[in-house]
Amino acid sequence: MNGAQALLRTLVDSRVDVCFGNPGTSEMHFVAALDSVPSMRAVLALFEGAVTGAADGYGRMTGRPAATLLHLGPGLGNGLANLHNARRARTPLLNVVGDHATYHKQYDAPLESDIDSVAGSVSGWLRRSESVASVAADAADGVAAALAGQVATLILPADVSWSDGATPAAPRPVPVPEAVGDDVVRAIAGVLGEGTVLLLGGAALTEAGQVAAARLGVTVFAETFPARMRRGARLPAVERLGYLAEHVQHQLTGARHIVLAGAKSPVSFFAYPGKASDLVPDGCEVHTLAAPGQDVVGALENLADLVGGTAVAPRAAARPALPTGALTVQNWADVIGALLPENAIVADEANTSGVLLPVATAGAPAHDVLTLTGGAIGLGLPLAAGAAVACPDRPVVCVEADGSAMYTLSALWTHAREGLNVTTVVLSNRAYAILRMELQRVGATGGDKAAELLDLSRPDLDFVSMATGMGVPASRATTGEELAARFEKALVEPGPHLIEAVVPALM
Amino acid sequence: MNGAQALLRTLVDSRVDVCFGNPGTSEMHFVAALDSVPSMRAVLALFEGAVTGAADGYGRMTGRPAATLLHLGPGLGNGLANLHNARRARTPLLNVVGDHATYHKQYDAPLESDIDSVAGSVSGWLRRSESVASVAADAADGVAAALAGQVATLILPADVSWSDGATPAAPRPVPVPEAVGDDVVRAIAGVLGEGTVLLLGGAALTEAGQVAAARLGVTVFAETFPARMRRGARLPAVERLGYLAEHVQHQLTGARHIVLAGAKSPVSFFAYPGKASDLVPDGCEVHTLAAPGQDVVGALENLADLVGGTAVAPRAAARPALPTGALTVQNWADVIGALLPENAIVADEANTSGVLLPVATAGAPAHDVLTLTGGAIGLGLPLAAGAAVACPDRPVVCVEADGSAMYTLSALWTHAREGLNVTTVVLSNRAYAILRMELQRVGATGGDKAAELLDLSRPDLDFVSMATGMGVPASRATTGEELAARFEKALVEPGPHLIEAVVPALM
Repeated sequence: MNGAQALLRTLVDSRVDVCFGNPGTSEMHFVAALDSVPSMRAVLALFEGAVTGAADGYGRMTGRPAATLLHLGPGLGNGLANLHNARRARTPLLNVVGDHATYHKQYDAPLESDIDSVAGSVSGWLRRSESVASVAADAADGVAAALAGQVATLILPADVSWSDGATPAAPRPVPVPEAVGDDVVRAIAGVLGEGTVLLLGGAALTEAGQVAAARLGVTVFAETFPARMRRGARLPAVERLGYLAEHVQHQLTGARHIVLAGAKSPVSFFAYPGKASDLVPDGCEVHTLAAPGQDVVGALENLADLVGGTAVAPRAAARPALPTGALTVQNWADVIGALLPENAIVADEANTSGVLLPVATAGAPAHDVLTLTGGAIGLGLPLAAGAAVACPDRPVVCVEADGSAMYTLSALWTHAREGLNVTTVVLSNRAYAILRMELQRVGATGGDKAAELLDLSRPDLDFVSMATGMGVPASRATTGEELAARFEKALVEPGPHLIEAVVPALM
Repeated sequence: MNGAQALLRTLVDSRVDVCFGNPGTSEMHFVAALDSVPSMRAVLALFEGAVTGAADGYGRMTGRPAATLLHLGPGLGNGLANLHNARRARTPLLNVVGDHATYHKQYDAPLESDIDSVAGSVSGWLRRSESVASVAADAADGVAAALAGQVATLILPADVSWSDGATPAAPRPVPVPEAVGDDVVRAIAGVLGEGTVLLLGGAALTEAGQVAAARLGVTVFAETFPARMRRGARLPAVERLGYLAEHVQHQLTGARHIVLAGAKSPVSFFAYPGKASDLVPDGCEVHTLAAPGQDVVGALENLADLVGGTAVAPRAAARPALPTGALTVQNWADVIGALLPENAIVADEANTSGVLLPVATAGAPAHDVLTLTGGAIGLGLPLAAGAAVACPDRPVVCVEADGSAMYTLSALWTHAREGLNVTTVVLSNRAYAILRMELQRVGATGGDKAAELLDLSRPDLDFVSMATGMGVPASRATTGEELAARFEKALVEPGPHLIEAVVPALM
């Protein structure tokens, strides 16, 4: 058995049985070994940003890592932005980055580069497999590291892949989140009351976490960009903190205690001249019930039991009416809210166009929302692919800004090849609308040249043509009626669809 | 004057007057400052891989750096693969990577990441601008560093951009390539003769370098993947070393001395089990006339003068006949050879489909060829964009493999927005054909799953639809006649065009 075969067997024995990949020559033995390990599913993407974004979506939905297969430093580089998002999401994910054979590196061949430094920037665990004797153990260790909620990266030299004499390694114990001490829970109980704000993140945004949080009788918010949040009808009404610092400051007005439950203390996404970066109100104390990675649901349940909190009425089922007339930033979201199917997964990279989506879908049937955790745009389409591979029986709805879609558009081809049940709605406002807003917020004054850099028209992007060219049936909607008809039809038909919703830019 | 304004004025004073960019919030003051510096041209690309690849093409054609504008670590990551190619090409290029404000970094906001480590992997010069007092000097230093033939990266915190009190800095002296000593030239003269192979790279592949080399009366090859090579009718007949190690070994059979003139000693692109990585024949000595970055043309001319070499007959003008019938790997290249216009720039990422292109174009009117220097695919379309911005009066022909095209396809939109005279021929063989070959060459045996990962059909990619969707007029050709008719028409009409040439896969 060669190194690649032992690695793949170790992965499937460790319950890592999906690999998103875009291989090159140094990965050919890994590719060949796939046929000797039938239970490993290999999914091709045409660009590594789609590979890593799909692995992120898969990991968020299963709680288990997918493997990626990346081609040396440039392949890793192409996947880096979505690995950044995965790192921020604390997604379990295992990169396998092929490298030159160990003895070949000295020659500084054209594809030689410093993989380790680049990988280190996103990886909580990083190892270079040194020999065929260690590669399987390295893989098992990497899976365990990933399961702790981080990006793990294994650099795999070609000769370690192709050399014989390897044996699979036993799965490592699955890491268990650290429990929160009773003393911490008791201390937090002492600060609950009027003026206390509970901030939920990570696993606290499961249904169990939110139900426990709702029993505490305090104001509850979700972190701004959750990796995965359960919401909708019959769940507690938990609003997310806003993207804009001014919005967060409004939401936190009057807070005297902020309790962090799997979330980080609120900070501004960017710095703005003369504005605060730290969004904790003056005089407000910040307490940590559970840090990211700790057993936050257990802590919330213990806390709720301790204070005797009782269940509160969840959100009622309620959908917006189907809108009519030309699409607006409001009414396209109402279409989604009106028609979102039961137990959907929503991959949300709608950016400015999606500002009203959370309201429109609040009372829709319960669903999971996956968001842009790290701010590195180009995540939505790959994320949807990974979620659909993870959950083939659930409808996936991808709401995607036009500017962001262009970063990793080839993920649509993977939607098509794998026949994924992803319905993509591209919000085509023909602008980097968020940057028009940010240009003003940072206090800058641009002219025509600045405007040109924030404009996506001249020429207009035709997402119907582009999607069709990658094998995804596509159509365009300019009115609420058209969007509703096309969205309903797409949800019913198997396989992927794309609808270009032509909306006005928010700015 | 704020930091961004001083930076931009310093750049244009230093003859850096094109900026390819894809900005975000932290770059808004840079964007706004563009309107205060009219002589800086800003070119928007919709993905950073297109930004950096375009800057590479621009730098190769002008010898001067373009600036890039990249958004924090993820934007740099997206551009990393083509920066790797630029590093291998020794292209002058100046990255400006926006970062959070200096005081904001402590908050670990979602987009915070280790920019320095990632940038360091591709940059010969790297600096983080610390204050508005230093930013202009940093920019001037960065330009000078880039002009030495390397990627220079300036990390620009948002508050350094927006703070007032900056003044432009004076241009630094343009670095001059180190001259090669007469002793070295004399020593090399002593090894010229039968059994000597001269290997040209870098500036040696200008017309002057090749003409001088041809006077030496020895076998001359060009490096495998030149950054820029002048060739065609009335130039010396210089063949490139092959991509396949076996091919190079054949080309170097009998060599007793290899003289490096701006090139590196030949090594295999990848390692293969049981095959050599070092391609220098046994017993052959390697001598360096000029290392990359030294004044190689001067050294070659001095050497030719010393040995009294006389000019040799250049290649005669000769074009292949226009082919008929279904497209093949041979005849599409003959179309290009038959119709390539005078003084064209050929951005070549045709990969396996392009194996016969050098022969087909050898006697075409003199032209420049830009190749995939670092092996990081996804370069061709951006490279063509940058070359067209650099040389608006020259026709640019981009020959592009389908698999590689998908990495940075959105560069087509920049072709359209800027009205660039780029004629792209996508060789659509619906496979990663090179990997089918490499799978065999590494001695691996794959089955259906391996084959699936190397296949680009199911669904077929429709480049006509995709290009049209980005505003580039497009058509498809399946025969030699169709390709010739469409190629001729595209060359005559202003602005970009794309032709999808449906060719059989080499394997």
